[in-house]
Amino acid sequence: MGRPGRRGLSYAGVGVDRAASAEGVRRLLSAVRYRAPSSSGRHVPLPGHYAGLLRIGRETVALTTDTIGTKGLLARELNRWEEVGEDVVAINVNDLAAVGARPGAIVDTISLNRPVPEVLAAIGRGIDRGIRKARCSLVGGETAIVPELVRGVDLGATALGFYPPGRRPITGQRIRPRDRLLGLPSSGVHANGLTLARRVGSSLSRGFLHRRSGATRTLGAELLTPTRCYVPAVEAIAKLSEVTGLAHISGGGVRNLSRLAPDVAFNLSRWPAPRGIFRFLGEAGNISPHEMFQTFNMGVGFVVACRPKGVGEILRRLARTGYADAMEVGSVGLGRGVHLPQLHLSYEGYG
Amino acid sequence: MGRPGRRGLSYAGVGVDRAASAEGVRRLLSAVRYRAPSSSGRHVPLPGHYAGLLRIGRETVALTTDTIGTKGLLARELNRWEEVGEDVVAINVNDLAAVGARPGAIVDTISLNRPVPEVLAAIGRGIDRGIRKARCSLVGGETAIVPELVRGVDLGATALGFYPPGRRPITGQRIRPRDRLLGLPSSGVHANGLTLARRVGSSLSRGFLHRRSGATRTLGAELLTPTRCYVPAVEAIAKLSEVTGLAHISGGGVRNLSRLAPDVAFNLSRWPAPRGIFRFLGEAGNISPHEMFQTFNMGVGFVVACRPKGVGEILRRLARTGYADAMEVGSVGLGRGVHLPQLHLSYEGYG
Repeated sequence: MGRPGRRGLSYAGVGVDRAASAEGVRRLLSAVRYRAPSSSGRHVPLPGHYAGLLRIGRETVALTTDTIGTKGLLARELNRWEEVGEDVVAINVNDLAAVGARPGAIVDTISLNRPVPEVLAAIGRGIDRGIRKARCSLVGGETAIVPELVRGVDLGATALGFYPPGRRPITGQRIRPRDRLLGLPSSGVHANGLTLARRVGSSLSRGFLHRRSGATRTLGAELLTPTRCYVPAVEAIAKLSEVTGLAHISGGGVRNLSRLAPDVAFNLSRWPAPRGIFRFLGEAGNISPHEMFQTFNMGVGFVVACRPKGVGEILRRLARTGYADAMEVGSVGLGRGVHLPQLHLSYEGYG
Repeated sequence: MGRPGRRGLSYAGVGVDRAASAEGVRRLLSAVRYRAPSSSGRHVPLPGHYAGLLRIGRETVALTTDTIGTKGLLARELNRWEEVGEDVVAINVNDLAAVGARPGAIVDTISLNRPVPEVLAAIGRGIDRGIRKARCSLVGGETAIVPELVRGVDLGATALGFYPPGRRPITGQRIRPRDRLLGLPSSGVHANGLTLARRVGSSLSRGFLHRRSGATRTLGAELLTPTRCYVPAVEAIAKLSEVTGLAHISGGGVRNLSRLAPDVAFNLSRWPAPRGIFRFLGEAGNISPHEMFQTFNMGVGFVVACRPKGVGEILRRLARTGYADAMEVGSVGLGRGVHLPQLHLSYEGYG
């Protein structure tokens, strides 16, 4: 779908074939046909959403899993591990936040080629920072030493969320035209698009030691900045009936919005112009805007959809909780897909 | 701790340093100091146990995570993926069974070098078989294409369990001397010790096509046999008050028993003599019995500790549920650690 210039970078160009991946996942899912009896809990199907929901007794729990992917290769190259420890928590709890769940527990999975105690201690410090921000417990984990299987560290986690009394899942089902879209800025690229970003870095003469114009840190340090945690934001607004949808802008960029509601158009007419690291990556890598916006979060890591009359109260609550930088980025309209009219970009759906 | 003969194989000898791994995990865990408030659910600490427990409202849920490790390399070598798909479910739900929880939901995590649809479809068929036996739902997953990070497939999962009305966690806390130990046979090596087993296979002139004396299948096919699922066994007996502890004999072999209760001795005086694949691996690899019993399940994949008066009823229920091959393997006594007196083997603890 991306149309980069002849020498520009795209995800397909660096070895990640989105269509083949989607086909593979489709084949896997179509092979899984079993439906468990209700005595094993009631599965609440939310196909394509951020988390799986299960009703157990009177509680609904949410389960989500994700890895930092190739961000681990950058951590290895720079031998900095604390940031990715924080990332692996943040990317998972943000997915829970995207269904309005409160994080309760997390487990980590680390596959690594050799057990360097300093590396694991640094990952542990990062996990501690992550769960502190999300206010959840690390209740277990698995550390597998598999030297023949991984190069460096494959770092993943699974997070369990729940709904406190008075709260229900927020899935986007209630989204309708005229809803507004509020954006919460990201702290950088988070943990998505790293295969592409690393390729850009490697092409520079100083590599990840490069310091882009206007930056106070090296490119490597910028790229390693941990994913911002949006859990406190969602905790502050989840009970408001005006909130109709929540989107974590992760892999797939702005296309993530389509996961909430396939039958409306998300018009991002006020999305901030790309700047900082995003502008730099696009220019240095000659990456098309179309590819940029479906790969990176482009400055906004989380989006709240809400009724027009809720905007004021939601922005006030967000400001009180540490998200004074939240802003309107667009609105919901008739149609389908995700659109950035000022950049002439349109995406049909998520996958 | 293992004392293999000079030319014999051991885990340390094939590049897996247990002491360094344990130190790494200790460093990671000691860096995680945050304790979440009870508004995020109440974490029930069970250090060193098979699952993490969290109380949410009136429910207690259990979370466990594990990967198939280097069994994925064997799957790749033989290009057979359905078995490991079943494994990744079984190893996780068996860990839930080991705390007496009923599996409700599972999520898979697949990191792979390229998205071959046939591979993912086969893994999906295996997952389907696994969740069918465990009667739980696949509620999500993550498929990451990370060609630079992994060789082949790094396959993991996380399972969520819960306690149906009338059931409580079974942790081993009530175990006491004179309790009996019942063993449920394994289906083979399951998903542990594969780094060592693969080394043995590679040393044979026909490799994994070797057919050991008395076997109807090749060594590769034998090693790929999916992990037996013990969920139905635990479902059949979990409400009996005579059941005092449950152990999944996974990585660490018989030492797993020490996870249930550190202050008693597990005397495995009736453990079956090694035969079949286990006898073959020990002889062909010249692996010491001490190393074998702390690496492989040695024919018994799950152990039930119970009061003496419960033995008859438990064996009857197991027989009705498909575990007619369950047998007494030993008893609990004064002391500490795990002991196989007939082989003069003693282990001090789990880690």
